[in-house]
Amino acid sequence: MISTKLTELLGIDHPVVCAPMGGVTGGRLAGAVTAAGGLGLVGVSYGDPAFIDEHLPQAAANGGVWGVGCVMFTFDERPGLWDKVLGYAPPVVALSFGSTAQVEKYAAGAAEAGSRVVVQVHDPDQAAVALRAGAHVIVAQGAEAGGHHASRTTLPLIPAVLDVTRGEVPVVAAGGFADGRGLAAALALGADGVMMGTRFAATEESTASPGFKARLVSASTDDTVNTRSFDVVRGIPWDERYSARSVANDFTRTWTGRDPELAARRGEIEPAWTAAVARDDTAQRALFAGENVDRIHDVRPAGQVVRDVVADAERILAGLSRHLRA
Amino acid sequence: MISTKLTELLGIDHPVVCAPMGGVTGGRLAGAVTAAGGLGLVGVSYGDPAFIDEHLPQAAANGGVWGVGCVMFTFDERPGLWDKVLGYAPPVVALSFGSTAQVEKYAAGAAEAGSRVVVQVHDPDQAAVALRAGAHVIVAQGAEAGGHHASRTTLPLIPAVLDVTRGEVPVVAAGGFADGRGLAAALALGADGVMMGTRFAATEESTASPGFKARLVSASTDDTVNTRSFDVVRGIPWDERYSARSVANDFTRTWTGRDPELAARRGEIEPAWTAAVARDDTAQRALFAGENVDRIHDVRPAGQVVRDVVADAERILAGLSRHLRA
Repeated sequence: MISTKLTELLGIDHPVVCAPMGGVTGGRLAGAVTAAGGLGLVGVSYGDPAFIDEHLPQAAANGGVWGVGCVMFTFDERPGLWDKVLGYAPPVVALSFGSTAQVEKYAAGAAEAGSRVVVQVHDPDQAAVALRAGAHVIVAQGAEAGGHHASRTTLPLIPAVLDVTRGEVPVVAAGGFADGRGLAAALALGADGVMMGTRFAATEESTASPGFKARLVSASTDDTVNTRSFDVVRGIPWDERYSARSVANDFTRTWTGRDPELAARRGEIEPAWTAAVARDDTAQRALFAGENVDRIHDVRPAGQVVRDVVADAERILAGLSRHLRA
Repeated sequence: MISTKLTELLGIDHPVVCAPMGGVTGGRLAGAVTAAGGLGLVGVSYGDPAFIDEHLPQAAANGGVWGVGCVMFTFDERPGLWDKVLGYAPPVVALSFGSTAQVEKYAAGAAEAGSRVVVQVHDPDQAAVALRAGAHVIVAQGAEAGGHHASRTTLPLIPAVLDVTRGEVPVVAAGGFADGRGLAAALALGADGVMMGTRFAATEESTASPGFKARLVSASTDDTVNTRSFDVVRGIPWDERYSARSVANDFTRTWTGRDPELAARRGEIEPAWTAAVARDDTAQRALFAGENVDRIHDVRPAGQVVRDVVADAERILAGLSRHLRA
């Protein structure tokens, strides 16, 4: 066991959080991470009600501390969805990608419902907003992350956020973590845990498609690209400060950097793209992956990921004082 | 004292390296870092002979382990300069930014002259090249760095490079480090030390101009930009895979992204730009700074930087086992 302010606050064994990845972190994956002593967060992202009804009970099935991750700006457009999420009484609600007003609104709502509130931030100013909004935990996510992220990178970001939070709440480092070395480094920086995405996407319980998982295992970091094309083709109004890291494919090579044209031709292009995604065409579908995709060499059980990360970090933490000389 | 494979190999007290920054790390700064028990590397970069004759003796003046940093691709064009550098018998020669053939040539030459050879890399393939070329130490530099860098970021890069070096040589982490938390995190990742640039640029001994130092203290990370404009206006043929992070100013706002036009109009623009640099016009000059410029709040003696970083890292390393529970 690795104890930090995060594990103490939430009552979990290990400071390892599974990122709430849309289309990837379903109830089985979140539940497996929770069962292994970490924190599993179901990614409801764009908020399909049927998905919520299926996956939130799965995450809760084994008991333990589980949660749900919500992309705030998409909830404003779907009245009723937020109440549906809270109806499952998630012990943890993780909020990401919203305006100051949205952070305040959803943090207050989740806290009132009795959930622990996690807010993801990308710079020190957002950390100050999250603190004022009553976040119980802050996730500081760097640009190494797969999927959506802002521009600052994790290593300089974490100390900058810690200088804002000053110990008031646990800080979880996200972006660029895939193993026990990363967890040990995060704790050395002063963070209270790590959130990992790509590593958990390549697990048996992940709902990533077979083609997607195969590319996570085979792709190199040099194959990744930051793109807005997948947002534009889906018509999702992401703030321009956020782009998404994906393994490059024919779709990104064709469209990255041509957002206005793709938006204008969306009616023509989107149906074929959606059909390609449905048949798991990896040349077309989003293949969100972080910079550390280089170090993903297998698909393994999520519980094994947690155990490996924790065992390696324990060994490293126990040994670091060897560097000290009088 | 913090002991690692780096300190043992080089016979230094602390695994803290001052980056060889052109126009910034002169002999006084390098000598001060060396005197404080770290490794100071004079940045000869584009290789002015008079600079070498002035600054290399300064770095060597107090004894101790000092070195010199050379940008390889610029040395090929200046016969005699390399022999001039080696004539000062630098204990350490740090090589950066060269082709495979250049890494092989300069690493062999420096080793033959009796220097310890440090090679800076930006991805695992370059690390393999450096190993084969006989590097004694590898610096793995991430894109958080100020000045010139490639695209991968430090946190995922270090484990990827360590998976190539497999303990054969010490690995120094660079890009995103400015304090003791960073040094502790680098050791937790498995690196053997850190190289810091921006933090040492903002020291009393740095030869950064007064205007430059003032901007290092006042600038935010959000003010930094990756640009090739300063290379283009100077007519320096950098490989396109490398850009340089600078605090943004009028010059970067005018020219970033307009390389071909700037190159074409160089004869017209360069004289006024050079004159502006000579009068320390911070709206025009390069203000190379890393992502962690946010955390630079003062100009202090370089020896104090080393002592502060080491003291903080020692405290952190001694305390990390508190996270372990049976």
